[in-house]
Amino acid sequence: MEDSAGTGTRRGRPGHDQQAVLRVAVELFNRQGYDATSVGDVARELGLTKSAIYHHVPSKEHLLRTAVDEALDALIGALDDVAATDGLDAGRRLRLAVRSSVSVLVAHLPAVTLLLRVHGNTPVQKAALARRRTIDERLADMVRAAVAEGAVRDDLDPLLISRLLFGTVNSLVEWVHTDDVDAEALADAVTTLAFDGLGSVSRRSDR
Amino acid sequence: MEDSAGTGTRRGRPGHDQQAVLRVAVELFNRQGYDATSVGDVARELGLTKSAIYHHVPSKEHLLRTAVDEALDALIGALDDVAATDGLDAGRRLRLAVRSSVSVLVAHLPAVTLLLRVHGNTPVQKAALARRRTIDERLADMVRAAVAEGAVRDDLDPLLISRLLFGTVNSLVEWVHTDDVDAEALADAVTTLAFDGLGSVSRRSDR
Repeated sequence: MEDSAGTGTRRGRPGHDQQAVLRVAVELFNRQGYDATSVGDVARELGLTKSAIYHHVPSKEHLLRTAVDEALDALIGALDDVAATDGLDAGRRLRLAVRSSVSVLVAHLPAVTLLLRVHGNTPVQKAALARRRTIDERLADMVRAAVAEGAVRDDLDPLLISRLLFGTVNSLVEWVHTDDVDAEALADAVTTLAFDGLGSVSRRSDR
Repeated sequence: MEDSAGTGTRRGRPGHDQQAVLRVAVELFNRQGYDATSVGDVARELGLTKSAIYHHVPSKEHLLRTAVDEALDALIGALDDVAATDGLDAGRRLRLAVRSSVSVLVAHLPAVTLLLRVHGNTPVQKAALARRRTIDERLADMVRAAVAEGAVRDDLDPLLISRLLFGTVNSLVEWVHTDDVDAEALADAVTTLAFDGLGSVSRRSDR
């Protein structure tokens, strides 16, 4: 509990076991809901006692924080990478941000799913929501830049476009399963639909 | 508890009070999460005692069922109306289904928000998820019909298109607030973006 760094806590046997507890906890949080899941549920799922779990992790909240920080760090890191990529106009930068968001979502699916379902009930949850808002603001800025450049339609509010675009990306957590998804193909599909629309490919060329 | 119809239960003073309890309960469920909200929380919010709440409604689960049934009935009713509309080709039918889904989502925002966050922990929740799946299947069938007709692009899996399209619609619950939204304008924006894409309007006419 004295550890405030969030990821480095070690109690008893560390490493592998702590990772296993985290993985099972996040899976249960996503399946049943965070509030409906007790440390006892996590212990039962792992065939351990509750005190064995507390040997590895200080609290349920600590597990939540570790997972949502994983998701937030990955999402923010992806946006930093996009920002650091040279030679992109604003339209291509936005496309790359969409692709990267899909990739992060697939690569960190349990953590991102948990993040997207966080309420603001506790300090850890409020902090996660605050970091999410900074991401949303960066994405909205990227849409604004793409609109200003003429790469994205200017007949709709850029903030609305940003919300719909990344709402689509975030909705993937409702049905994607890591084991059966081709992240590249999914990123292609999301980007194609978002930028080109549902309209028939063949019909479009007739217009 | 003897009442199994789900909406007609009356205990003590009915009508207005029962509606007030439902409204406040759903608002708390959405803000804090269903599992994190107790009947005591609902009572406190209304300035009532817990036993006064139980005078109006038999259980927390009953409140959940009433709200998710409201959402499901409205969504299914909207699809029935679309199906009963004469003279529409499959493409226009799909557009109308998207518009109607947005309208229902705005008109029944608290109930739809709650529905979209239901886990499958209890019989009521499992039943809600099963009804949601029948809606998803009808929407996927509408996309398939529009693809077969040539109104929607055929280079992506229709099921994937359906999931992304209605994932976008469902993502509205994350940021829309009933008091400041123009449902018609929102339905226009979602339909335009989904069918025509983000690509610049002016640039498109140059192609």
